[in-house]
Amino acid sequence: MDFESGNNLPSEVIIVEVGPRDGLQREPTPISTDDKVSLIESLVEAGLKHIQITSFVHPRLVPQMADAEEVCARIPRKAGVVYSGLALNLKGVERAQAAGLAQVDISVSASDAHSRRNANRSLEDALDEFKVMVNRARQCGMVVRGGIQCAFGYQRADDVGSETVIEIARHHLDLGVDQLALADSSGFANPKGMTALLEKISPLAGDTPVVLHLHDTRGMGLANVAAALHSGVRVFDTAFGGLGGCPFIDGATGNIATEDTVYMLEEMGIRTGVDLDKLSLISRQFEKKLGQTLPGKIYRLTA
Amino acid sequence: MDFESGNNLPSEVIIVEVGPRDGLQREPTPISTDDKVSLIESLVEAGLKHIQITSFVHPRLVPQMADAEEVCARIPRKAGVVYSGLALNLKGVERAQAAGLAQVDISVSASDAHSRRNANRSLEDALDEFKVMVNRARQCGMVVRGGIQCAFGYQRADDVGSETVIEIARHHLDLGVDQLALADSSGFANPKGMTALLEKISPLAGDTPVVLHLHDTRGMGLANVAAALHSGVRVFDTAFGGLGGCPFIDGATGNIATEDTVYMLEEMGIRTGVDLDKLSLISRQFEKKLGQTLPGKIYRLTA
Repeated sequence: MDFESGNNLPSEVIIVEVGPRDGLQREPTPISTDDKVSLIESLVEAGLKHIQITSFVHPRLVPQMADAEEVCARIPRKAGVVYSGLALNLKGVERAQAAGLAQVDISVSASDAHSRRNANRSLEDALDEFKVMVNRARQCGMVVRGGIQCAFGYQRADDVGSETVIEIARHHLDLGVDQLALADSSGFANPKGMTALLEKISPLAGDTPVVLHLHDTRGMGLANVAAALHSGVRVFDTAFGGLGGCPFIDGATGNIATEDTVYMLEEMGIRTGVDLDKLSLISRQFEKKLGQTLPGKIYRLTA
Repeated sequence: MDFESGNNLPSEVIIVEVGPRDGLQREPTPISTDDKVSLIESLVEAGLKHIQITSFVHPRLVPQMADAEEVCARIPRKAGVVYSGLALNLKGVERAQAAGLAQVDISVSASDAHSRRNANRSLEDALDEFKVMVNRARQCGMVVRGGIQCAFGYQRADDVGSETVIEIARHHLDLGVDQLALADSSGFANPKGMTALLEKISPLAGDTPVVLHLHDTRGMGLANVAAALHSGVRVFDTAFGGLGGCPFIDGATGNIATEDTVYMLEEMGIRTGVDLDKLSLISRQFEKKLGQTLPGKIYRLTA
């Protein structure tokens, strides 16, 4: 592949908008179901073709997602748009299926410590549960996205070994996941490490698409997008305005901002189908609703 | 060059700290000469080996830099550290030389419109003045860094042609500048465009080092650093905390943050010599002094 002339860049990529889930889950301001439904409709209106709309988790742990079923029931489904949901256990998969979602996003953390804190189980137990979840989802005919959280580190950049990530990737792929997602949950990934990990993961994944879920905690989000593009990644999770962050990771800040990612990609000649003006308007409205400036940059420049 | 394995990455790069000049110039809070001198000393203490300490401009236009001579007179000079100053005209070069600086940073804007607004002269006149400035600086034995502002666009990403930038680069190189600086004054550069421009500039520059001066207005700063590393750039301007921005460019936000750049580089195995804890402390102190959160990310995470 030839970085210099950029001729291994794709002509388009898929943006998965995770704002309604990862963006909102830790927000202390309660967002009404009405507002969520209207948000998701607006996102579709702005051209997003894949939206992670909610998570099926215990409402006591993540109160903001307590209305998962209602959100799924109420959003109008537009042809050609994928609406997916996140599940942390078998019950979550069953709820996602019952709610009529065609795709479920499930994952394990590559960090045993993070797994115990975030999912209350060891990595080994999480891998077993993951298998049960994948099998159930496949039985139901759902598309399964299998993820690896903390793939670039949990509390330090060097506390998760790439061997562990590769082992989990093999595990997921052997179970027949439809997509393999690598999450930089703590924002530790750097472009060199990104390239190095993808060099190992891509041959294993073969035709199974690799999805990247990046946080911009340390400002390297778009640098990692650029590196990953050169390594063949064609699907990126982003959140409008750069909302988001895991409540169980100290200092974790938002997902990479949809607007900033889209802006960079389009400037690089890569189509996303996203209307930046419409999307920026959504972020500006949410900024007011949440009473805080969001981390994204482009939405503030797009009038 | 081989992007995949990252083996064309350098083992070290030079960070030019421009916070005392580009970072402070538009700050409405007056910073005392005492504070500037102490800031520069602290930056040296944090391991920075090159600091752009002031600019020799008319005090009515940039009041914050009115004490340029006093700053130069009062900072203790440490061996091995380069202290440079910015000049916009011949008088500025003469003031820099009289102030005892070994290096002067001068530039023209690749945008005629920006040149007229920022320097009150056409690009053609600016090129003539640049020649006079270079000749005077060289007569005085000063190291001359010749820059090109708005090399990636002024008000839009496509309002400066790369032919113009290349023509100015030839002009600067023909005059014998010691370094060639490309400035993304408005933050429009993207990694693909960066690679494309450097592919054309690097062969012209030959052994003359190419310096990049990036702003993070649109969040692509570190992505551009990563791309430029692969194209052979080894010197980057940064500002502590991500301070800065041109007062004559709407919406222009800070320089890329020194801490964020250093963090990424060190994580990529590239030495900078900068002590992140010490530098982050400087940014946190300035954050309090200026009464505003700075755009950088790492300084807030480094306790």
